[in-house]
Amino acid sequence: MSDSPAGVVDLLGVLAYAELTAFLRLAEDAATLAPTLTDRAELSDLAAAEYANFRLLRDRLSSLGVDPEGAMAPFVAALDDWHAQTRPGDWLEALVKAYVGTGIAADFYREAARHVDKETREIVDEALAEEVRSQFVVERVRAALADNPKLGGRLALWARRMVGEALSQAHRVAAARPDLALLLVSAIAQAQDDASSEAAGGRAEAVTDLVEIGRLFARLTEEHGRRMSALGLVPGP
Amino acid sequence: MSDSPAGVVDLLGVLAYAELTAFLRLAEDAATLAPTLTDRAELSDLAAAEYANFRLLRDRLSSLGVDPEGAMAPFVAALDDWHAQTRPGDWLEALVKAYVGTGIAADFYREAARHVDKETREIVDEALAEEVRSQFVVERVRAALADNPKLGGRLALWARRMVGEALSQAHRVAAARPDLALLLVSAIAQAQDDASSEAAGGRAEAVTDLVEIGRLFARLTEEHGRRMSALGLVPGP
Repeated sequence: MSDSPAGVVDLLGVLAYAELTAFLRLAEDAATLAPTLTDRAELSDLAAAEYANFRLLRDRLSSLGVDPEGAMAPFVAALDDWHAQTRPGDWLEALVKAYVGTGIAADFYREAARHVDKETREIVDEALAEEVRSQFVVERVRAALADNPKLGGRLALWARRMVGEALSQAHRVAAARPDLALLLVSAIAQAQDDASSEAAGGRAEAVTDLVEIGRLFARLTEEHGRRMSALGLVPGP
Repeated sequence: MSDSPAGVVDLLGVLAYAELTAFLRLAEDAATLAPTLTDRAELSDLAAAEYANFRLLRDRLSSLGVDPEGAMAPFVAALDDWHAQTRPGDWLEALVKAYVGTGIAADFYREAARHVDKETREIVDEALAEEVRSQFVVERVRAALADNPKLGGRLALWARRMVGEALSQAHRVAAARPDLALLLVSAIAQAQDDASSEAAGGRAEAVTDLVEIGRLFARLTEEHGRRMSALGLVPGP
């Protein structure tokens, strides 16, 4: 077994399954929705990159003495449900999902990785550092919007739905895996670290937590807005 | 445009699309049929390797000045139909397909590559040299047969169906792409090379062709039998 804190194993486990399943779903979208062989190859390229990331994370779990299947298992239902709720209806929706959906998930994982050991953090960052590859998505979506600006409304709604479903599944995961949830908010994590120092302030801590959570959501919202703008979409209220 | 003979471009094109579509189909089987996350990851690993092969072949086409999409297009229908006719009904059928179906296709491509320029041949051989990865398939199928020997009959029939469908699609491709078909039989290819030497013998040539074709099928049959035995299956009549 592993000496790593449960939160670290959970982070690697959820991210490993996220990459494995992203690989399979992108491959499915490439097979069924791509309008040309070139588009099919481009989305396949993104898919293959997700698989390489999965391998990196799985190997890290193994090297920590953790069974990858066991580490991934608690997150299968939430991630499968997210994909089931965000099945693209056409090629443009598949592209927006590949960019916006993958992006918001990556932001969450990146936040959680801020508070783990350096080696794990480097592996997580490497697995998430692939935005260059998705440049073709930006070009395709922008070209489609230039052709037909009316598409903007539908695709913006689609992006919002993905974010809503992501938050709803994140909430479910956080409730079931408190160690992982704690990684997301440094103030809480630190408060846990020296649980002895009960001291003055449950109230002060709760306020710090709220401030931290507020900052976290501000960062996530900002990044999401940046991606929507890159695609030529309006983030919406 | 390319200076390469049409047969070479066809060979790279059919193989590129074969790898791209094998990638997507294996990913689909991994997503829908794998009984455990470990199995899903193992088949995904095979799928990702096919994608890497696709990239190699696509890059070779580009470096020859050939548009990859154009080179693949003539083979889309035959390969898509082959996959449609050999959609696995369960995990074991998916494994046998990954091993036997991929194997017989690889044999055809390898035969065709015997008569092309050295650089192309090396790339084709590299794309086909992945049998090590499929060792887990052998282990899984053998374990399933040890548990339940009755499965052998059904899986052997399944393998035969894949071979039958492969021959039928190969025939269709050969009829539509004579340059590619010519690569398969060296005697014919050489006869084409010095088309000036009409000389004595239409009849002698035809006999040589038949002998060559007989040898080709003997090699293909032998390799197929070797793979079936590796899985613990009887090739059948």
